[in-house]
Amino acid sequence: MSHLGPLRRGVWAALLGQLLRPPRAVCIRAVDCHSQVAQAVLTSQLKPHQEKPNFIIKVPKGTRDLSPQQMVVREKILDKIVSCFKRHGAEGLDTPAFELTDMLTEKYEDNFGLMYDLKDQGGELLSLRYDLTVPFARYLAMNKLKKMKRYQVGKVWRRESPAIVQGRYREFCQCDFDIAGEFDPMIPDAECLKIMCEILNGLQLGDFLIKVNDRRVVDGMFAVCGVPESKFRTICTSMDKLDKMSWEDVRHEMVAQKGLTPEVADRIGAYIQCHGGISLVEEMSKDPRLSQSQRALQGLGDLKLLFDYLTLFGIAEKISFDLSLARGLDYYTGVIYEAVLLQSPGQAGKGAPNVGSVAAGGRYDGLVAQFDPKGHNVPCVGLSIGVERIFYLVEQKMKASSKKVRTTETQVFVATPQKNFLRERLKLITELWDAGIKAEMLYKNNPKLLTQLHYCEKRDIPLMVIIGEQEQNEGVVKLRTVANREEVTINRESLVAEIQKRLSES
Amino acid sequence: MSHLGPLRRGVWAALLGQLLRPPRAVCIRAVDCHSQVAQAVLTSQLKPHQEKPNFIIKVPKGTRDLSPQQMVVREKILDKIVSCFKRHGAEGLDTPAFELTDMLTEKYEDNFGLMYDLKDQGGELLSLRYDLTVPFARYLAMNKLKKMKRYQVGKVWRRESPAIVQGRYREFCQCDFDIAGEFDPMIPDAECLKIMCEILNGLQLGDFLIKVNDRRVVDGMFAVCGVPESKFRTICTSMDKLDKMSWEDVRHEMVAQKGLTPEVADRIGAYIQCHGGISLVEEMSKDPRLSQSQRALQGLGDLKLLFDYLTLFGIAEKISFDLSLARGLDYYTGVIYEAVLLQSPGQAGKGAPNVGSVAAGGRYDGLVAQFDPKGHNVPCVGLSIGVERIFYLVEQKMKASSKKVRTTETQVFVATPQKNFLRERLKLITELWDAGIKAEMLYKNNPKLLTQLHYCEKRDIPLMVIIGEQEQNEGVVKLRTVANREEVTINRESLVAEIQKRLSES
Repeated sequence: MSHLGPLRRGVWAALLGQLLRPPRAVCIRAVDCHSQVAQAVLTSQLKPHQEKPNFIIKVPKGTRDLSPQQMVVREKILDKIVSCFKRHGAEGLDTPAFELTDMLTEKYEDNFGLMYDLKDQGGELLSLRYDLTVPFARYLAMNKLKKMKRYQVGKVWRRESPAIVQGRYREFCQCDFDIAGEFDPMIPDAECLKIMCEILNGLQLGDFLIKVNDRRVVDGMFAVCGVPESKFRTICTSMDKLDKMSWEDVRHEMVAQKGLTPEVADRIGAYIQCHGGISLVEEMSKDPRLSQSQRALQGLGDLKLLFDYLTLFGIAEKISFDLSLARGLDYYTGVIYEAVLLQSPGQAGKGAPNVGSVAAGGRYDGLVAQFDPKGHNVPCVGLSIGVERIFYLVEQKMKASSKKVRTTETQVFVATPQKNFLRERLKLITELWDAGIKAEMLYKNNPKLLTQLHYCEKRDIPLMVIIGEQEQNEGVVKLRTVANREEVTINRESLVAEIQKRLSES
Repeated sequence: MSHLGPLRRGVWAALLGQLLRPPRAVCIRAVDCHSQVAQAVLTSQLKPHQEKPNFIIKVPKGTRDLSPQQMVVREKILDKIVSCFKRHGAEGLDTPAFELTDMLTEKYEDNFGLMYDLKDQGGELLSLRYDLTVPFARYLAMNKLKKMKRYQVGKVWRRESPAIVQGRYREFCQCDFDIAGEFDPMIPDAECLKIMCEILNGLQLGDFLIKVNDRRVVDGMFAVCGVPESKFRTICTSMDKLDKMSWEDVRHEMVAQKGLTPEVADRIGAYIQCHGGISLVEEMSKDPRLSQSQRALQGLGDLKLLFDYLTLFGIAEKISFDLSLARGLDYYTGVIYEAVLLQSPGQAGKGAPNVGSVAAGGRYDGLVAQFDPKGHNVPCVGLSIGVERIFYLVEQKMKASSKKVRTTETQVFVATPQKNFLRERLKLITELWDAGIKAEMLYKNNPKLLTQLHYCEKRDIPLMVIIGEQEQNEGVVKLRTVANREEVTINRESLVAEIQKRLSES
């Protein structure tokens, strides 16, 4: 079967290929033709030729490579984030890049169209994961786990129109921390906010604020404003655009596209002006209109408790109860939050980027049940850090400081001033590698000493071992400190020990 | 143009879809129907209900989740591999999970059909990457880089029939190290083999052997055996199956499917029996038939030099020149290699798994030119470690040793024997977190002391801080060593310092 399938498809694909491509065909044929040239070149001799593929070499729209310089920044950020997750006792988890499309369907409401589907090549229908939350819920249900505190770092994919300048991509990395299980109210929720504060403080991105709301307060607000229940989710999606669009535009969408009356929209408009601390929570609990909603009151009660715990964690002043916060994803059921960086007026004046939300999350008590054949529920709360936006800021900061970033960790460079010393260099560097020392040399039989020195200086390699005829005869090597160009002569056999001593001191 | 093409393709694909799948159609409809049930369930209220999606919760065929236990193993393996790459001066790189399909086309010969394509959702035609080598070559060409020593760790995807028991998956993680640039012959190639040895030694997987050959020797062998040049690549692909199929089956494929005469196949069959060390290289250089091929002689000359360097690196006895080694990928042009684990007879008797190749690579001097508009070339050599198979072995070894694996790094657990001590625990744990100490507590208002003790013991958390009414009144806490249940009473304000002291000692 596995043989027949591909074969038949292959035949069809070939037939189809003939029919399919008037404008593309030119391009594809050009490629085919060039590849054949390339292949001919490769399999015979490698000779220069004129004909070459005329396609533009690029990465897919909304994606990017990370250069070694960028990888260093990325790794520093991920290290900080993951060590915070571990500090809070989380276990690691990995899930596949794609899921059965059915597993993802109906989890993202209006955003469903942003999912990347895989082509039906005969087999299961698959889609790239849109976030790490739904795969986590699928994992819990599939393994019948009733509690778990896990983190996950991985790429997710969304077919959004990318505005790359602000650090938005179609492929991006998320760092998630979630607590699944039946616990006493608001204790895990408060810890998620504590983690967001620790990470944002640790990354030194400047002042920030975490907006907090509750889905029950949002729904209650919609209800008392007169939104029909069938429209809660779609109006919620509109409200979520408030960080990208003005209230006027969001209001227009609610009225013109989603059919709210202007009065209803204006009532919502009045509430979403409100933001503040625990006093606003208390004020809203007594709001004549809002307090009509039992759901809103439940949410407000939990928010009160949450603020109590946040005070004990010492982070209450970083948290703002904000009635405009909606969170677009469909699966939230309780408290929701979103961290935004605050620009100081000075920065804003210098054209600093507006990166919007850098971390967000909330409680999703119904998601696991959607995967469970018996509908068993596992309450969850979690957060997601958007690495791309943070990366953009850290990268800008590093560029501004013009501090040189090392992209390798090489500790020792093995050099020679003389010709025909390749074999000696190879023997020497083997000793270093085998002792766990990070070492490099040039892949040349007879490199110039100056080239070797430049290589070290350019790459900030701290130490250089030099071996030449004289050293060879005397059973010694020279050990040079690249920064100050000091050289000492040491016995060949004590080289490894000497280098290890120096590295442990630095 | 880019709009017209994909649209027409889409229409054709739909038509073709109707023709292609008689049995599949039934299956898809059934799934759709279930989704509607799920949708109905989701978009209304989350209430308990009988109707539940009766689809099976699973991950896509050939993929898997990694549990926390598995993540620990995975991370240990990756750590070992990446630190070896860094020891050899490599820089990090990341590329997108998918590439423009055009970028991958024509790079994988017979394996092209194993690529995962993304659905044409309007825009560019994309495919998931099949390896990390082609994206690396694309990166070099795109950025006009003439030299680079980089490593990359990431998932790749291949639509192979998975035999999961042997650690083969459709989604799997590769760790690649490559050296790009014009250098003196065989020095970077030898370093790649040195790296493979260091990694396989470091991972303690038992004895291993690295088979080495050269594409020019393979091609020369084909030529002198009488294979037409147009069939070199496809016969090479057949030969690559020798680790999965017997020579008889491969011979049958060569003759029956690929049209070789039996005599030609048998001549190949005679050569591929040969394996040995540098003496075999020298023997083959004098082989009456093989030495007719200039290409073979070039390859054999380089292999001689390679063995010279391998001897200096102290790894020559791990390397076997093996004329049966072909490597299926189309882009290799020079030396090729593949590491296999050797089973001791004792292990084989116990039904130890045959995991085949765990690392492989080679020289590909023509790949970058295929991306470069002007055909500029950058010679490259590299290696790829197959993490999945190594993972399988390490996991088996750990299961056999029944050593407990910690999935968290928590150092301190905050407990209380009394009711109504949540606030005190929250304050205390905040101090620990803020001091960088990894700490956990139960998310309960009034947990039982025994539950808390069990949590610590089950998870091997080394220290426990206990606070109760008496401690609270006296301004002290109890610090308990979980392993031996020893408790000391210390001042509340010296707690952090005491914990840090203990952790630094352990």
